[in-house]
Amino acid sequence: MFQNDKKSSTFRTITERTSASSGCGGKEVAGTDMNAAVTSDAKDTAVSKDDRAQQKQQKPCIIWFTGLSGSGKTTTAIALEKRLNAMGKHTYLIDGDHLRQGLNSDLSFTDEDRTENIRRVGEVAKLFVDAGLIVIVALISPFKADRLAVRNLVKKDEFIEVYMNTPLEVCEQRDVKGLYKKARAGEIQNFTGVDSRYEKPEQPDVVIDSSTAMTAETVDRVISTIV
Amino acid sequence: MFQNDKKSSTFRTITERTSASSGCGGKEVAGTDMNAAVTSDAKDTAVSKDDRAQQKQQKPCIIWFTGLSGSGKTTTAIALEKRLNAMGKHTYLIDGDHLRQGLNSDLSFTDEDRTENIRRVGEVAKLFVDAGLIVIVALISPFKADRLAVRNLVKKDEFIEVYMNTPLEVCEQRDVKGLYKKARAGEIQNFTGVDSRYEKPEQPDVVIDSSTAMTAETVDRVISTIV
Repeated sequence: MFQNDKKSSTFRTITERTSASSGCGGKEVAGTDMNAAVTSDAKDTAVSKDDRAQQKQQKPCIIWFTGLSGSGKTTTAIALEKRLNAMGKHTYLIDGDHLRQGLNSDLSFTDEDRTENIRRVGEVAKLFVDAGLIVIVALISPFKADRLAVRNLVKKDEFIEVYMNTPLEVCEQRDVKGLYKKARAGEIQNFTGVDSRYEKPEQPDVVIDSSTAMTAETVDRVISTIV
Repeated sequence: MFQNDKKSSTFRTITERTSASSGCGGKEVAGTDMNAAVTSDAKDTAVSKDDRAQQKQQKPCIIWFTGLSGSGKTTTAIALEKRLNAMGKHTYLIDGDHLRQGLNSDLSFTDEDRTENIRRVGEVAKLFVDAGLIVIVALISPFKADRLAVRNLVKKDEFIEVYMNTPLEVCEQRDVKGLYKKARAGEIQNFTGVDSRYEKPEQPDVVIDSSTAMTAETVDRVISTIV
C-alpha cells in the first residue's frame, strides 16, 4: 500500500527529524537515503514518539546522574531502575563505563574526548526518549557546558538532573577500585576530583548525598520529580 | 538498602558489560565510574535484558534494511514498524539520515566515515536490543564487512538482514530528491550505485524487490522471520 505512493512514505518522527536538517545540497548528502527526507502530509501513517510513549503509559525522559567517581551514581541508578520496573515503567540504564566499551570505545579521557563522550551519550539518550522510554544515565559528566548541551537536546521537562553531592572525602574513602589512590600517587591522570575539575550543577532537579541518605529514600525523591 | 553494601551495587547487565572489558589498568580508566565495575553475586537486584524483554512480551532483535538509495528501505521499514506496533510490539526505527543529524553529525561520506557511521548505528541498535525493543534500521550500509561487524555485536538470532534488491534502474528512476541525477552529472561524489560500490549480501534473511512486491506483502515476509 505504501509502495508507489510517495506521500505515504512519510511519518511524523522522520518529518520532525528532517526539519532539523540544515539542507540537502552538495557533497554532504551523497549516498544518503533521500527517500527518507519527506513531507509532512501523512503523519498518521506511522508510529510517532507519542504513540510509543502512550503504548508504555508513561512520560519518557532522561534522568541524568552526575557526580564524582564513588558518589553513588550507579548504585542509585540501579535501584531507581529496579523500582521503576516494579512500577511497570519501561526503562533503560546507560552507564558511562558500558558505552566506553562499545559506542565510545574510540574515545580517550582528554577534555575534548570527554565532551564527545557526553555528547554521544546525550544523543543516544534522546533516541531512547523518542522510543518512549525512561532512560537513566550514570556518568561523571564533570563539565557544566556538556550537561547543558544534553539538556538542550530534549524538551525542558524531559531532562532531570540528579546531582550526587557526596563529599569527595567519602568518595575517596570508598575508592572501590583504588583509583583515587592511584590518582593521588600520580599513576593515572585527569581523574575528576583529583587533577581534573568537577563543575557543580547550579540548579539540579535533585541533590543527593549518598553518605547521609539511604538509597531507597533518594529513589523516592527522584521518582517524585517524574510522576 | 544498597547504600553501604558494595555487593548489592551490582546487576546483571552491568556485569555482562564489564566482562567484555579488556581490563582497568593505566590511564585509560582515569575518571571512570569504577563503582560500576562490579561482581556478579547480586544479579537479582536489578533489571536485566531478559526482564525488559519479558515486560514487553517479545524477543528483541535488530531488523536491518540494506540497499541502494531509493530501493524502498525506509518505506518498508515504516510500514513494518506500524504493523508491529499494531501487534502490540515495542519498536524503534533508526534511520541513517536521522542519525546523521545527531549522533553522527560529525561524520562525512568517505569510506572511513561510512564505516564509523555504521559501527555507531550498530552499537546503538545493540543498546535498543538490550533495552528489550525490536529495532528497525534503514541504512544503505553498502559494505559487507560493516554489516558483518554489526551482526557480530548481537546473538545470532538477534540480527535479521533484509536486502532491498530493487534494480538500480528503478531506484534511479524514482530519484525522489534528484540525487542520482546529480551523481550522474558529477555534482556529488561517492554516491552508492553510481561512483561508490554496493556489496550485495551473500546470505540475507529476506530479499525484497520493491519494484515488484507490494509493501504489505514484504512486511509479512519480514514479520514471519521474527515471530
